[in-house]
Amino acid sequence: VAALIGLDWGTSSLRAALIDRDGTILERFASPHGITNLPEGGYEAAFAEAVGAWREPGLPVLASGMVGARTGWQEAPYVPCPGGAAEIAASLLTIRTGDGGELRILPGMSFRNGAGVPDVMRGEETQILGCLGDGGQSGLFVLPGTHSKWVRVEAGRIAGFATYVTGELFGVLREHAFIARLAEEPEDPAGFAEGLAAARREGGLTRRLFETRTRVLDGAMPGTAVRPFLSGMLIGAELLGAAELYDLSQPVRIVADGVLGEAYSTALAARGIPASRIEPERAFVAGLAAVDAALKEPA
Amino acid sequence: VAALIGLDWGTSSLRAALIDRDGTILERFASPHGITNLPEGGYEAAFAEAVGAWREPGLPVLASGMVGARTGWQEAPYVPCPGGAAEIAASLLTIRTGDGGELRILPGMSFRNGAGVPDVMRGEETQILGCLGDGGQSGLFVLPGTHSKWVRVEAGRIAGFATYVTGELFGVLREHAFIARLAEEPEDPAGFAEGLAAARREGGLTRRLFETRTRVLDGAMPGTAVRPFLSGMLIGAELLGAAELYDLSQPVRIVADGVLGEAYSTALAARGIPASRIEPERAFVAGLAAVDAALKEPA
Repeated sequence: VAALIGLDWGTSSLRAALIDRDGTILERFASPHGITNLPEGGYEAAFAEAVGAWREPGLPVLASGMVGARTGWQEAPYVPCPGGAAEIAASLLTIRTGDGGELRILPGMSFRNGAGVPDVMRGEETQILGCLGDGGQSGLFVLPGTHSKWVRVEAGRIAGFATYVTGELFGVLREHAFIARLAEEPEDPAGFAEGLAAARREGGLTRRLFETRTRVLDGAMPGTAVRPFLSGMLIGAELLGAAELYDLSQPVRIVADGVLGEAYSTALAARGIPASRIEPERAFVAGLAAVDAALKEPA
Repeated sequence: VAALIGLDWGTSSLRAALIDRDGTILERFASPHGITNLPEGGYEAAFAEAVGAWREPGLPVLASGMVGARTGWQEAPYVPCPGGAAEIAASLLTIRTGDGGELRILPGMSFRNGAGVPDVMRGEETQILGCLGDGGQSGLFVLPGTHSKWVRVEAGRIAGFATYVTGELFGVLREHAFIARLAEEPEDPAGFAEGLAAARREGGLTRRLFETRTRVLDGAMPGTAVRPFLSGMLIGAELLGAAELYDLSQPVRIVADGVLGEAYSTALAARGIPASRIEPERAFVAGLAAVDAALKEPA
């Protein structure tokens, strides 16, 4: 029996799921209609296409991600840390949709660290909430991506987090930088471990990045290893940076699958940091269910 | 009386100078005919256009820069560190040009640091050689640019160096990165000092780069400060990295003029590192003269 419709509505894609009471996904929908790529008819049309077939009275619809950004459908202001399912549930933004029903959008979260530096996330907080059900009421999580998030959870609430622009930096360097212009296909995965090792050498990241070029010119590395090397160096830099902020003797839980999940597992293992993996879709669905449950609890 | 023709022949420009015995520049020439932008007629045509009017028998012509790269006119193989004017002079590549005369191309230099990481430069070594005449037989130099070079000189020879991709990283982030998309004109120079301060915060460079975005979203920084902030953060990261490789209690000599020279002066001063400035064109001309003098010395 369907208990919830969940939307993961980001910048470049929209995914929806019909979820039953125990968190099992009954049906899935996916479209490229992220907030920067809406169809004719805009948000309403994209929404109707995603959930129209599933809509029924009393079936809650929750959305998370950039749809609640200032540049999204409507802004759902950030909830400051520390916060968990209860604080998120108390700050939902309700939109009355064209079909006469409601859509509730989760706010993102904001954090100001000890140095007064602001940080924000939208969507990742939902995945984290979904990781806390199975006894994980505190700990350290990493959510790799364009903007990787390291998230510290205490007593079932998100206590703080830090963003690393690892994926974005990899993308612009791979596409536009002279230092990566020697890259060749097919990729040689052995470059990744070399990049991880290079990340630990002294002199700073902007020094080490030049190795991507000189090692090829020098004949020490094939062009096929350039991209994996760059990836290893940047993920390695993220880990070194995170070690300045967090105690990495505790286990880290990686919320990622596929190539990215594998890469972070390898990188953490190479530094002897205990880590486990969590499937992101499962975490997302469980996170929405946790917010839905918090909504129904007496305050 | 003209004693030397010097060419600074790089990737995107060709500059030439007619130089008299005491290093004064008598005439200058500049064209956009760098090695990636040659005119019809190729290297010969670009060369003839630059020096044709000055050519006379017995007047040496020396060129430095990417013209001697594998992708240049002819490859002048790197001279390994340590090396100075004598080693460079002994490794000149001679090209017989279409006008019946000769052009001599300076080799670049290569270095392999303690960790076995290869590094290379072409052109910067000439400027360094030109800084050693006025008593400066040893010390630490920085040559800011797309690929900044930190160069250590001992007993009049280049002992080692390290490359920082500061300028290139600034360029790709400014042009292509989401994190810098909030940048506005006209630039607010106050952002530079904030970027320098931000560079010292913990968590790693890929963490700190996200501040470029969140500080604007948060209202803490105007869009006009974004580019100076990013510049300060990257130059600050270069200095922190260089401090891992070099003793920065010794004075640093900055070979740069204009905005870049000012930026590095400000950055070094902010960290209490003594620094002085050297005019790059003067250094370049003096470097060529030093190699020319070494050529004429008995071996």
